[in-house]
Parts: sequence; C-alpha cells; structure tokens
Amino acid sequence: MGALDECHYNEELENGVNIGGCVELGFEREPETIAIEKAVRVLLQGLGEDINREGIRKTPFRVAKALREGTRGYKQKVKDIVGGALFPEAGLESKIGHAGGAGGLVIVRDLDLFSYCESCLLPFQVKCHVGYVPSGQRVLGLSKLSRVAEVFAKRLQDPHRLANEICAALHHGIKPTGVAVVLQCSHIHFPDFDFNPNHENSVKTLVKSGSGVFDDEMADIWTDFLSLLRFRGIKFEKDCHLRKLVEKSWCPSLTLTKIGVPDCAMLSAVATILCSLGENPLRKELLETPDRFLKWLLNFKNSNLDLKLNGFVRLKKEECLISNGNEELLCSEVNLPFWSQCEHHLLPFHGVVHIGYYGSSKVNPVGKSLLQSIVHFYGFKLQVQERLTRQIAETVSSFLGGDVMVVVEASHTCMISRGIEKFGSSTATIAELGRFSMDPTARAIFLQIVPNFSPIAD
Amino acid sequence: MGALDECHYNEELENGVNIGGCVELGFEREPETIAIEKAVRVLLQGLGEDINREGIRKTPFRVAKALREGTRGYKQKVKDIVGGALFPEAGLESKIGHAGGAGGLVIVRDLDLFSYCESCLLPFQVKCHVGYVPSGQRVLGLSKLSRVAEVFAKRLQDPHRLANEICAALHHGIKPTGVAVVLQCSHIHFPDFDFNPNHENSVKTLVKSGSGVFDDEMADIWTDFLSLLRFRGIKFEKDCHLRKLVEKSWCPSLTLTKIGVPDCAMLSAVATILCSLGENPLRKELLETPDRFLKWLLNFKNSNLDLKLNGFVRLKKEECLISNGNEELLCSEVNLPFWSQCEHHLLPFHGVVHIGYYGSSKVNPVGKSLLQSIVHFYGFKLQVQERLTRQIAETVSSFLGGDVMVVVEASHTCMISRGIEKFGSSTATIAELGRFSMDPTARAIFLQIVPNFSPIAD
Repeated sequence: MGALDECHYNEELENGVNIGGCVELGFEREPETIAIEKAVRVLLQGLGEDINREGIRKTPFRVAKALREGTRGYKQKVKDIVGGALFPEAGLESKIGHAGGAGGLVIVRDLDLFSYCESCLLPFQVKCHVGYVPSGQRVLGLSKLSRVAEVFAKRLQDPHRLANEICAALHHGIKPTGVAVVLQCSHIHFPDFDFNPNHENSVKTLVKSGSGVFDDEMADIWTDFLSLLRFRGIKFEKDCHLRKLVEKSWCPSLTLTKIGVPDCAMLSAVATILCSLGENPLRKELLETPDRFLKWLLNFKNSNLDLKLNGFVRLKKEECLISNGNEELLCSEVNLPFWSQCEHHLLPFHGVVHIGYYGSSKVNPVGKSLLQSIVHFYGFKLQVQERLTRQIAETVSSFLGGDVMVVVEASHTCMISRGIEKFGSSTATIAELGRFSMDPTARAIFLQIVPNFSPIAD
Repeated sequence: MGALDECHYNEELENGVNIGGCVELGFEREPETIAIEKAVRVLLQGLGEDINREGIRKTPFRVAKALREGTRGYKQKVKDIVGGALFPEAGLESKIGHAGGAGGLVIVRDLDLFSYCESCLLPFQVKCHVGYVPSGQRVLGLSKLSRVAEVFAKRLQDPHRLANEICAALHHGIKPTGVAVVLQCSHIHFPDFDFNPNHENSVKTLVKSGSGVFDDEMADIWTDFLSLLRFRGIKFEKDCHLRKLVEKSWCPSLTLTKIGVPDCAMLSAVATILCSLGENPLRKELLETPDRFLKWLLNFKNSNLDLKLNGFVRLKKEECLISNGNEELLCSEVNLPFWSQCEHHLLPFHGVVHIGYYGSSKVNPVGKSLLQSIVHFYGFKLQVQERLTRQIAETVSSFLGGDVMVVVEASHTCMISRGIEKFGSSTATIAELGRFSMDPTARAIFLQIVPNFSPIAD
C-alpha cells in the first residue's frame, strides 16, 4: 500500500526509486525510524502475527514513515512560514471603519487537517476555520493560515490545545488585532460489540480559541466570525454548554477500563514510538497513552473472537437448514457496522457491511446479531478490505445458502492521515456468490437497496 | 503567500530555510525554473505591472514552483508506484462467484485531484472514482489507485484523455480483469461581463473510461460500479447523451474568439512555459494554448476597465444624491459574482460579493448593474482579496453613503491547485465603513442576509 509521502518527490522511496530532484537523507537509516520499526515488530508479534507474511513484511517501515511524517510539526517553525509572507496592504483611507490591512476580518474556512490523538495515538480529523484581524497594514498570505495550522496539527494533540496553539502562533507571528480559531474534530469511536443501530461512527467535538479582540468570548467580533461559518453546520451556542462534558469524553479510550494484564513488551514498544517522535512519554497526558493505544490495538488480535463465533454458527446453521426449500426472495441486511485495522499501515478502517441473500421469507432466518458477529469476527483482525469482503461472503454463504452478495463500504484512515490525504474518499468492495455472480438483475436489485454510506470525513 | 510545497520538507525554500531531512537539488537554479520565471516577468509586464512591487516581486518564482510541481506527473512512472504494492490475496475457495483476489469489484470513490487544462493552462478540479476487478489473486494497495491517478492529473490534460490514461496505466500495471474510471471535472468559467444571475461558476463535465470487462459501456459490471457511485450525484445515462456537446465546449476558452492583436512577447513567453514543463508547444492540442491563456490573463490587465466605469459612476452618483435624506433602511445587494487573479501566484480566485448599506428605500438607488461594474472593475486586476474588499467598500461608499459593509467570499485556486491542496476551503473578508464599524447589530442583521456561498469544490 505504499508509504506516506507528503514529499511527493520522495514518493517511491519504498520501492527504492527516486523520481524527482529531491534526495532523502537516509530516512530509512535514522535511529528514530529504526526504533519505530523495531517497536512495530513487537506490536505485530504481540497481535499474534507472522511478521514475515508478505502483506505485513513492510508494515513496520510504512508505520514508521507515516508516524514520523504525520508528526513532522515538531520540527517546523511558524516564524519560517510567516516570515516571508507578510505583505503590505493599505487600510481605509479617510473613512471610519475597518478593511484591508487595517482591521477588516479575514477568514479561511473548511481547511481539512488531521492530527494524532495524544490520549490513544489514533489519528483524528479536523475541519479548521481560522480568522484574524490585520493590523499595522500587513496581511498574511492566505495559504499561510493553513500552513501554520498544519504545523500544530502534525503533532500528538488534544483539540483544545491544538486550537490554542494555532491561535497563539498566529498571534505571535502576525501581530494582528486578534486571531480566532474554530475546530470541528472527529475521532473514531472505539468498538462497540453490542449491536446498536444508532451507534455513531465517530466522537465529534467543537472547540474555539481567540486572542486579542477575540479574547473575550462574548465580543461582537465573534458573532461576525461565526456568522460566516454558520453554513458549515456550526452551532456554537449549544455546543459550548456541553464543553465540560466533551472535554471529559473526547477520546473514547478515556472511558474504557484499563486492559487486564498489560503486555510489558508491547507497552514499552509504544513508549519507544512516543520517544522516537520527539515526545516525552512521561508528559502527564501521555502517561497512559501506551495502555490506551493497546486497548485499541488488542481488539485486532488474531483469534480474539474465535470461540464465541464457532458456537453461534453451529446453532444457527441447523435452524436455517430447516427453514429452507420454499420460494426464494431477495433479502438483505444492510448497514452492519465494522471496525478493522489496515495491515499495511496499522491504521483503522471502518464502515458498514451490506449482505444480500435469497431466503424463504423477508425475515432473516439467522438473525441480524449473528451476521453482526460474523462481521466483527472478520473485522477485528489485521485486514485488507478485499479479504474481509470475501471472508464474510464465504462464511455467510455456509448457512444462508450459496447465493450471497456482500458489499463493504469503508473509510480508510490510511487514505486520509498519510501523505495522500484524500479527505472524503471512501472505498467499496464487492463479493458475489452463486446466483449473484451470474444474474446482473439480482445484483442491481440488491445494490438499489444499499443505502448511502457517508465516510466520517463528510 | 509563499510557495507551493507538495514537498513539505522543502516548505521553506522560499525563505531560504530547510526544515527537514530533504535537500532540494538547486530547483531554483534549474534552467526550466529560470526560463519560467523569465517568461512570467514578461507576462507581468504585459499586464502593465511593476515587477518590483513587493506583492509580485517573488511571483515569478512562486509561479515557476507551482507549475513545475503541478506538472510533476511527466516525471513519474506508474510501474514504480504499482510495483511494490501488489499483494497476494486469495479468491473464493470452492464457490462460484467473484471476491477478494478473484474478481470482486474494488472501488475507491471521491478522490479530489486537480489538473491543468491543456487548452488554456488554468487548473481544473477533478473528483475521481476508480474501480477494478482483480485477477491472478493479486490486489493493489488501495492508496495506489489514488497515486496512479495523480501521475496523470499532474500534467496538462483534457478530461477524456485523463480518464483514458488513468485507465490504461492501471490496466497495464495491475493486469486485472478490468478497470473503470469516472471523472467529474469542473473548470472555471471565463468572465461574463453581462450580469447574469444564473451564470454558473464553472463548466462541469463527466467522463468515463473502461478496459477489460469494462470495455463495453453496456456491460452489466458498469451498472454495479455506477450503483455504488449513485449517491455522489452521478447520473450517467443523461450526461452520456450530452457527451458530444460537452467535448466541444469543455474549456470555455474554446468558445471565445481570438484575441485582437496578440502580443508576440507574451505569446512566446507562454510557449516557453509549455516547453519548460516538458511539453511540446507544437502538439496539436497546445498550438493555441498561449493565445487562449492570454485571453484569460489579459482580462486582468491593469486599467482595462477604467474608462467605462468612470463615466458610469459620475452619472449614477448624481442620481443617488438626489434621492437621499429620508429615513434609512438597511439594504443589501448580495451574490454579485467576481473574477480575479491572485497576484502572488497568477492563479484565479473567484466568488461573490455582498454589499450592505443604508438607503431610503429597499430599491438600490444606483442599480445592481453599477455595483456589478464596480465589482468587476476591482476584480479584473492582479489582486489580493483583502485589497479587493477594501476597494469595493471605498468606491461604493462614495455614492451609497458612508455606511457600507462589504463581504467577499471566494474560492482560491492557489489554495487548491498548489501544494496545500485544500479542496473545499473558502475565504471570506469583510470591510465595514461608518455605522457598520460601530454597530454590531447592523453587522449581524446584514450577515444574516448573506446567503450560503459554495466554493466550486463542493
């Protein structure tokens, strides 16, 4: 699946090819890279994986590259970005008011960023809105607002600190009358094993930070700023009251209990990763991060769910066989949520599974919860989406009959948080068994039933 | 506004700072860079600009960097991208059908790309959807579908050729059962000087390309593929009938007449740019590109519109003064379209202007068309949005009274097509004169009237 490449000129490093005029100075041989690779091998082994398997052989390098690039903000300086990009711009001449370089509000909306959650080390998505009021007849090149925001997003973060750091850096860099930052953050939910149709894909929070004229949250200029964000689905008044609640429950890992018996080698591997990114694992907020990251990761331990499912399948299969034989209808079970972990990048991918089959009645003979268990069973592994789709189809067909179609729709963190940063992209994979593989009409009918899938980026 | 940086490690090249482990090998001193810079200086002078003015002094370098990075696809090889990323993946075992590595459709949707129009050299946006059917029990890492698409997007292109090239490259690289590519392309409209409220911001087209099992446009597998795109606003049947029409009118420059007296130095400068990007300016499709690019660029020649507007203002100003004196109402004229050209990057930014003022009746005393003329007057220059906003406010206030508020909402090509690639981002700037600068309620009422602005990225 290739490596992360913010630096497109280095795009083909992984394959040993350099296609541009830019030479990577031994990234592969840097001690931080090697330390992360080693730590990832420990994690893979802790998950029960064969680290020489073709799909994951290069995973340690891919993870090291993604993590180091994804936290490159530690090495960047705002002064270097802002320095060359302050342009003289006249303010109002002989008028009372604010405009141009003399106090007219400047806003950049809907900047897509991602960051890493310092609580659990998973990436989270950020929709960033920045405004400032120029002073001294200098304005900042608009794209620099985005670049400065990136410097702080590309670190281990918490939404409030991220907003505060962007705001403070811009205030210090531009020396304006004021800076306002609003962030809409979205964090993947930790798995919910009980089937819950209303389960949200992600935890969302809305934070803001202001300096100068934006220092006072009640200042009228906040009203101006928020007015121009109002079509972005931002309702601040309401959310602000929830702030205390949100602060406590932002990262879903914080509400989970500690893992039973921590694997010391794995915990220490995660701590090594934190060090190699330039962080101090003893910083208060990071103390339990290894534990919380493992809470996530150990969901994907090979064979975690085996036994539970095996018993279930046998029981239901018998029931199902009895009810067969009548006229068959095209039936479906759609929107079964799943979580999985991309084996190429050790990053989450998640979404929904839709299952079509033929049955004697519209009532699913094996029950939605069994299908959900099968989906979880194959989801909670290091996976690729193509294999997940096939495995679900094969298993389901063994007790829903040979005519089965499975569609998996997913949002891949590795398509968003790494170099290609394709926010809003989503994937779909299809498996067709028996009649579905031969009958386009059957496929078309089922695909009409499949509801709209919205990736978390939306 | 800084330079383009796909290569974030090189982010601060412009400021002479190198913040990562990656060294740019004399990009600044490469003959192609120098040739483009020289050509851009000719263009700036042809536009009547002082090339030593602070805002545009570094524009030649910024343009060279943006163009060369934006067409880096010429140097990239698909084989290098695909080579290391084909993973073994079992197909179905003892079942009839398609799945996993044995024929189950794999789709990546909603990849945001941009490309350069070979007809007029302006960037255009692409929403790319790619599917393929694996064979030989090998699947391609999902992010590689995006990377391969990028290789061809980062060239001078036409939508049909772009779709065909992505399709052929993937077919050749993966050797699958088939590949399908659907592109939704969006090209900025050339200026329309007559006020037309229904004027579209952009020309859109929808193209597709298929290989192998997708070779036949009527094949059932196209139905499967398109079913899973149906929520992306794609209605292919209808659009397909329009294909011939669309092909002819895709680039708006093609429907314009030739420019009157071509400036040979400027034409030759554009041809030099084409050469420096690695293109052959004698290629059939590029023969008239310099002429067409100048058709766009010369809209932004300083003083193009001066005379026309001056006459207009005098007339209307007198009429306006007569009708003053009654009780004043908060009035507005919203959604006045504008086109402008970012002076930092020679790239379009465009959007809408909203004007609030106080008047004696809800009927705009000077007429919408005069306000539109003023907007065009300040838009059709090399500009920055902050200055545009202030200039409109100052001019409008001279005949609508001193209490004026102007909001400019825009989508900046330089925020999308260069390194930061913030698709969907938009900007807003505000100028407040007189009462609006002192009365938050007046601002709030006016901002409530401002309608939703949708950047072309949406």
